[in-house]
Amino acid sequence: MPQVKPRTLSGFMELLPAPQQQLERMLNVLRETYALYGFTPLDTPLLESAEVLLAKGGGETEKQIYRFQKGDSDLALRFDLTVPLAKYVAQHYGELSFPFRRYQIGKVYRGERAQRGRFREFYQADIDIIGDGKLSILNEAEIPAIIYQTFSRLGLKRFQIRVNNRKILNGFYAMLHLEGYASDIMRIVDKLDKVGQDKLGLMLAEEPYINEDAAGEILEFILIRGSNAEVLARLEDYRGQNALFDEGLDELRAVTEHLAAFGVPEENFAVDLTIARGLDYYTGTVYETALLDHPEIGSVCSGGRYDNLAGYYIDKPLPGVGISIGVTRLFYVLGEQGLLNPALPTAPADVLVLPMTEDLAPAVRLATELRAAGVRTQLYTEQKKFKAKMAYADKLAIPYALFLGEDELAGNVVACKDMTTGVQTTLSVPETISLIRAGLREKNRGAIILEQSNKGE
Amino acid sequence: MPQVKPRTLSGFMELLPAPQQQLERMLNVLRETYALYGFTPLDTPLLESAEVLLAKGGGETEKQIYRFQKGDSDLALRFDLTVPLAKYVAQHYGELSFPFRRYQIGKVYRGERAQRGRFREFYQADIDIIGDGKLSILNEAEIPAIIYQTFSRLGLKRFQIRVNNRKILNGFYAMLHLEGYASDIMRIVDKLDKVGQDKLGLMLAEEPYINEDAAGEILEFILIRGSNAEVLARLEDYRGQNALFDEGLDELRAVTEHLAAFGVPEENFAVDLTIARGLDYYTGTVYETALLDHPEIGSVCSGGRYDNLAGYYIDKPLPGVGISIGVTRLFYVLGEQGLLNPALPTAPADVLVLPMTEDLAPAVRLATELRAAGVRTQLYTEQKKFKAKMAYADKLAIPYALFLGEDELAGNVVACKDMTTGVQTTLSVPETISLIRAGLREKNRGAIILEQSNKGE
Repeated sequence: MPQVKPRTLSGFMELLPAPQQQLERMLNVLRETYALYGFTPLDTPLLESAEVLLAKGGGETEKQIYRFQKGDSDLALRFDLTVPLAKYVAQHYGELSFPFRRYQIGKVYRGERAQRGRFREFYQADIDIIGDGKLSILNEAEIPAIIYQTFSRLGLKRFQIRVNNRKILNGFYAMLHLEGYASDIMRIVDKLDKVGQDKLGLMLAEEPYINEDAAGEILEFILIRGSNAEVLARLEDYRGQNALFDEGLDELRAVTEHLAAFGVPEENFAVDLTIARGLDYYTGTVYETALLDHPEIGSVCSGGRYDNLAGYYIDKPLPGVGISIGVTRLFYVLGEQGLLNPALPTAPADVLVLPMTEDLAPAVRLATELRAAGVRTQLYTEQKKFKAKMAYADKLAIPYALFLGEDELAGNVVACKDMTTGVQTTLSVPETISLIRAGLREKNRGAIILEQSNKGE
Repeated sequence: MPQVKPRTLSGFMELLPAPQQQLERMLNVLRETYALYGFTPLDTPLLESAEVLLAKGGGETEKQIYRFQKGDSDLALRFDLTVPLAKYVAQHYGELSFPFRRYQIGKVYRGERAQRGRFREFYQADIDIIGDGKLSILNEAEIPAIIYQTFSRLGLKRFQIRVNNRKILNGFYAMLHLEGYASDIMRIVDKLDKVGQDKLGLMLAEEPYINEDAAGEILEFILIRGSNAEVLARLEDYRGQNALFDEGLDELRAVTEHLAAFGVPEENFAVDLTIARGLDYYTGTVYETALLDHPEIGSVCSGGRYDNLAGYYIDKPLPGVGISIGVTRLFYVLGEQGLLNPALPTAPADVLVLPMTEDLAPAVRLATELRAAGVRTQLYTEQKKFKAKMAYADKLAIPYALFLGEDELAGNVVACKDMTTGVQTTLSVPETISLIRAGLREKNRGAIILEQSNKGE
């Protein structure tokens, strides 16, 4: 009778109920944190006209896009949340107030080569602040605070927000008369972690347009390390040679100036002159975020400042700054690394109510009372042996089982079994609800992500 | 310079920030209510293999589907959440615990003819309870409680959950020896509201397979009205003539029996023998939900009991019961009818902080403190005239503006303007936070939907 094998497309994440609850928790933290910083949620269509979506023209992304005809329409699934934002802001320009701060958490589609840990459908969680013509530098300074809060609320401590400024890089290469090669050099510099500084020096010197002195200068520059104050002091030595560089340095000072007031600890932040971000449209501050114990994961939150969000849709300068978290990949990697806190509840319900009498009305009333008190309740009325019912609660990890038999009804009480400890209480319904609520508070207290270093805590 | 006109596809809802906030509120109420009843959230891919998605075979839906080739793959966008659920349960059968209770709120795609109020991309909000072989009737009895809670929490009072049972209908038509025509007759009976009972009697009698007596019997049957007890008593008169009818009547009794214990008032519930639901796969209880002051909207929440969720994927009987809310259409219609409460906050932030000093550090610290207290805060540092800043807060309907000038800093206080009343206070930061929190509680107290009848309240 069954004719078709049920299957999910390769590269499409489909989770079982327990991990799905973990992902929902993570998405909720992102929503709440973004909202705290005054970003409004947007929800744009997943399908757009291909002409609109590809207005900027494509490169690598264009090959990966899901594009198709439906009737006369040439359609495409969105491949990021930035192009739909640009379209939205251009289309609704007259109805929006600027600075326009939006967050969007949604799925995007890229037909990448299928491989482990690579997804064709994945969540991005983006925030952007768009100005109308101008945008205060303080918005760029606020971004590290948002990144810090987001990852702290997820439970992380050992992470570092790494910041650079494209004007500093472009200005520096202009000092060396290498402005035409800035992008190429940044691509080489990006390999520093992989090849080490000696090899990198050789690689730079091998380029026909870089002489030996310049290679040395570049290496010295990108290896500037130290506290924020130390790095800024070293950068001051280059001041006065190039206007763009000086502007970038002023911006970098402004971004680092208020870190403490924004609540970002110095150890979670670093100026890093090797950060460039691949995308050509970044023009000022750029951000990456590294998990210090997991460098192999790469940046978990990146972005930057751009001057022109929507030039291909509208004749208005719309500068902005934004960051993006690749949630699906982050969730997958955290799971693989065993970093998702297994102690947090993943059950569909807080309580399983098990009627022990023929008449189900008292159990129904109890469930109604629990739900009115905000306790997620499942009423279990299937005809099964007691052992099978308890196995059901166990398998779903439902934290409490409530029993209502003749004795309990006569005594106006309810029996409550804590499924974790095995301890059973027999108390009034209000007392039982208090007990369950206190227990749930305790169980929900932990962080979503548990670092190796605090696992033993 | 701009080359492409930014536009959104016809039939795709894209909201401005304020209505988007209203929709988010509505979706949150759905999530919270569904979770209270022990349903776990699922999130399946929007894209599936066309072979899998169309396993059941298509009819009308197949023509509307977004289907396309990508490389060697024949793909389709999901057109409902039921087929992906069937696939999920069949695919993960061995890893799930039954009864399996899931909710899913997600977008689905149907290439319908574009017309006002019809959407090609729209949210469905579904719950289903799936049994393994068997499923207690109490699950069917619980559904009206969930519908009642959902719409009550959205703010509605004047709605009615209408319930029938397909076994009663099929059994009744079998009594008249019309079992082969049950579906055809139900399609005619469905027109009762539109054409009235006299016309319906004529339409029934016109059918070649219905004689005059039978037409009279059908009309009498579907016109049975009254309280639940009265309708059930009238139905008892038919008992003993058909086993299926009697089974359906027992089920209907079971569904109505615990309504009070489930917290569903009698006035929000009615047995309605004209309800049949078009889909052939419903086999027992069926549900519709009507807004009493807006019959033109049609059913806003429908569903029923089915015997075989996933027969085309797996050789296991998987009975279930489920309901679905077409959220996008509901939201659109409520907006058109002016039923969305305009008093609820839609601003991206609760507070706009306006620094009045050269040094921004105190304002940054204030914003950090507000956010730590859970107040959604935007720091406004653009170089604009004071009037433009206030116009920004006004246009976004941000409820509070905080000013921090030399005087406030010297006095260790902050000036807070309630943008609704115009009242300005100058208090310490903790006092101001308390004041804002109390104000926000008040502003967020209202319901999402305001019926005409309680608009004056």
